[in-house]
Formats: sequence, structure tokens, C-alpha cells
Amino acid sequence: MGGSLALALRAKNACARIIAVERDADTRARARGVVDQASPDLALAASADVIILATPVRAIVVLLPRVGVIARPNTIVMDLGSTKQQIAQALDALPAPIQAIGAHPLCGKETAGFAAADANLFRAAAFVLTPLARTSPRTLAFAQALAATLGARPIVLDAARHDRIVAAISHLPFALAATLMTTAADFARGDEMLFTLAASGFRDTSRLAASDTTMMLDTLLTNRANVVASLRAYSLQLGALADALARGDETTLRAALESAAEKRRELFKQRP
Amino acid sequence: MGGSLALALRAKNACARIIAVERDADTRARARGVVDQASPDLALAASADVIILATPVRAIVVLLPRVGVIARPNTIVMDLGSTKQQIAQALDALPAPIQAIGAHPLCGKETAGFAAADANLFRAAAFVLTPLARTSPRTLAFAQALAATLGARPIVLDAARHDRIVAAISHLPFALAATLMTTAADFARGDEMLFTLAASGFRDTSRLAASDTTMMLDTLLTNRANVVASLRAYSLQLGALADALARGDETTLRAALESAAEKRRELFKQRP
Repeated sequence: MGGSLALALRAKNACARIIAVERDADTRARARGVVDQASPDLALAASADVIILATPVRAIVVLLPRVGVIARPNTIVMDLGSTKQQIAQALDALPAPIQAIGAHPLCGKETAGFAAADANLFRAAAFVLTPLARTSPRTLAFAQALAATLGARPIVLDAARHDRIVAAISHLPFALAATLMTTAADFARGDEMLFTLAASGFRDTSRLAASDTTMMLDTLLTNRANVVASLRAYSLQLGALADALARGDETTLRAALESAAEKRRELFKQRP
Repeated sequence: MGGSLALALRAKNACARIIAVERDADTRARARGVVDQASPDLALAASADVIILATPVRAIVVLLPRVGVIARPNTIVMDLGSTKQQIAQALDALPAPIQAIGAHPLCGKETAGFAAADANLFRAAAFVLTPLARTSPRTLAFAQALAATLGARPIVLDAARHDRIVAAISHLPFALAATLMTTAADFARGDEMLFTLAASGFRDTSRLAASDTTMMLDTLLTNRANVVASLRAYSLQLGALADALARGDETTLRAALESAAEKRRELFKQRP
């Protein structure tokens, strides 16, 4: 996502200077075609007016105190982490003169790395902003303008509400896809023909299973209570569906499937 | 699927004459642009050399005895139903002079009706053929040639094996998608922002929920034992994932998610 951000900001000519701080040498080499400077040294970020952290959530939480040491007063520090409550605490612990705000653009891909970077990644995406009590109106306005520059739709939410929502619409689907892959692979051990027949339905339903494990592990573990609640609620619904099918209860099944189909069609009417 | 078949056969100039037997007047009107004759009267099929049934599974089971009454000796009767065991029984009950074979092209869409028909629907798709003991080598060869004409990959399987496999790779993903939609809609009643934030991950994982309810109800109810077994196996895996997350067991989570991610990447390496 850092790579896509750099590409998008460069394409919009939105920055006088872009510095990429990146541990991986290959990624730095790729980034050099886009940014003004690429280095593994966080100290370089000291010269920035805006510092945006685009790593997995727990890495952001670890990096923020180090950013707090180097950033100058009035520097805007923002993150793009996929859960916001633990990061909000870390942002709040930054030195008072630093301007802090959380963000989460909902446009992840299951492919990571600079090679998968895309200047249009943010276009039309929801770009959630989670300001803190300490966030100045000017910093919030800057973050909204940044989202708009990227072609995204800025949406202001508090961190707790954000985390509850993404548990249901993002972390739950990921867990379902990963578990589908696990279950299908178990079945495939008994019949090697299984994956030969897997078609577009399986492909789409399992797509998120390919997501970067470290990123998703950080996401799930920093949103544990919400994700577990979503999984428990889901399991009850799935159990009820299996029970209705097991007893051949066509009326219950039809009502459940018709309702789900109508909601899905309604939801993606304008964006299939 | 009947519409897509007619379009594909017409595009390939594979038939001297195509007759559509269709109950719905609007669909018949649309079909008339493609087929030579469209009628609600099954008796018209009596003149055909090949009769292909493309309705939901239980409708196929009901229609087959009527087809048996009108079809001439040596007529090839084939179906495109998405489960094969119950249909195999109905095919086997046809009069002996009729040539019978089951088929299932794995290229369904979640949009039904002639308006969604697509001449390229079958291209590169697995086209499962489930011959009966009574199916002649010539009829099997015809069915394989038909699949090849459509650009599909013919795969011969027995009906029981087919039904076990599709329970895991098709019916399970559908049930997961429908249940995701139900669960998310429940959450959305508590926070109207929920669906505003639903992005491509939710869209793909929930896509199958929009499938035609009557078709899917027939599919699930005629493959009940296999689908229930898949759902039970899945629920155990999902419960184990939720438990590992609830207790913060990072080692177990990482192993499960990494394994799922590797399998997904391996499986769709050549077909993302």
C-alpha cells in the first residue's frame, strides 16, 4: 500500500519530495523509480512535513514511538493500518507537538509488495479517518484533502466503531476464505480431481485466503474481540443453515437463501 | 445456461436446427433471435436428435419421464444439472432405446435468464460427463465432442464422485457466501455505515449469495448428505480458527493462515 500511495502521490504531483523508508532492498530498488529517496533509515523521515506509516498494524505500533523521537513539532503523523484502536493509543502517546491522525483506506489487495503497487488503488475507495481528541481541525482537513487527492472518499469514524465494522466486512470474509481453502485442501487429499473442477465461484470465495499472512495476523490479533464475535455470530448462522438442510426444511432454507440473495443484489446493484 | 448453450451452438454453427422449449414468454421472445423455434410445448422436442435439459435439478427429474414419453429411439437425452446422482436415477428410468448421459458444465453465473446468456460461457470450463452403465460409447463420444465444440474440457466422472466434489468446491462456497450476507446484514442493522465500507474483499466473498435461489435450493436438496458433511467439516475448521484467535494463539493462527495462503496461491498460480 505504501508503493501504491507513492505512485498515486507522484502521479498527482502532490508532493515536493517523497522519501520511502523501507527495510527490503529489492523494494527500495523498485521504489527508486518513483520516489526521490529510498532508505532503510527511519531517521530520514525527520525532514518530512508528513509521515505516513504503511506497514502491518503491530509494526506501526512499534514504529510510532521511534517516529515520535525523530519527528519535528507540527509534523503530521498518519498511518494506514487496517485496525485502528491499538494504533490510536500509540498515536495518542506521541509527543504533544506532533499532529496525529489514523487512517484506513479500504482497498487492500491480496498481493503485497511494490510490484503489485497501483496508482489507482485508492480511486473510489472508502478512506476512513480516525481523528483523536488531540487531532487539530487543520490536520483533519489535511487528511481529508489527501484522501480526495487520491480519488478516495474520506469518511470520519471513531476507532472503536471502525474496528467493529471491519471485523464484519473484511476480517470475517478473510477468515471464511482461509477456512474454505483449508477445508477444500483436506477434501482434495481424498480426491485429487477436486481442484481440477474448482471454478469461478470457488476462486472468488477463496480469493482473500491468499492475503499476506503477517498483515492479516496483525489485523486479526489487534481486533480480536470483534473478529471472534463476528466468527461466533457467523458460525451460529451457518449451523442453522446446515441444520435446516440436514432435516430437508425447504421453507426455512428458501427464506434464508432468498433473503441473502436479495440483500446481495441490492447492495451491489450499482457496483457489480 | 440454456441460453448460453444456444448462443454457443449457433456461433459454432453446430446444429442444423435449434428448438428452445421454454415456459417464460419473455425468455422465449429473447431466444427467438438465436434459435429456429421457441415454444412452451415440450412435444416439439420429439423431433430432436439431441434433447438437452437445462433447468434446476428437481425440474430435470420431473421433466425426464415426460421426455421419455416423447423422445424417439436413439435420441440422445442429456442434462446440465448441477448435481448428478438423482438425475442419474431418472435418466436410467428412461425407455431403453433412448441414449442417456448426464453432464455438468462448471461455469455457472449468479445471474440467470437469457439476458445474461453468453456464447463464451463454456470456454475453458470443466464439462463433467457422468455416463450411466447403459450409455453407449458412441453417446459418450458425442457428449465429449459437444463439450469440445463449446470450448470446454470434457471430464468423465461417476455421478457419486461428482456430487462429493461439487459439494466442497461449489455448494459449500455458495452456503458460505449466503451466510456472510445474512451475518453482515444482521450487523448492519446496528450500524448503517457497515455496507458503506464493504470493499472488493466483501464483494468477492459474498458474490455467490446472489445466485438464483430456486436453482441453488434444488442443488443443495439433491446433494444434501454431501453438502451437510462439507458444512460440518468447515464449521469445525472455523471453530478451531476462532478458538485460536480467542486465546491469542499466534503460532497456530500463523500456521493455519500461511498454509491456506500458500495453497490458494499455488492453486490459482496460472489462473488468477
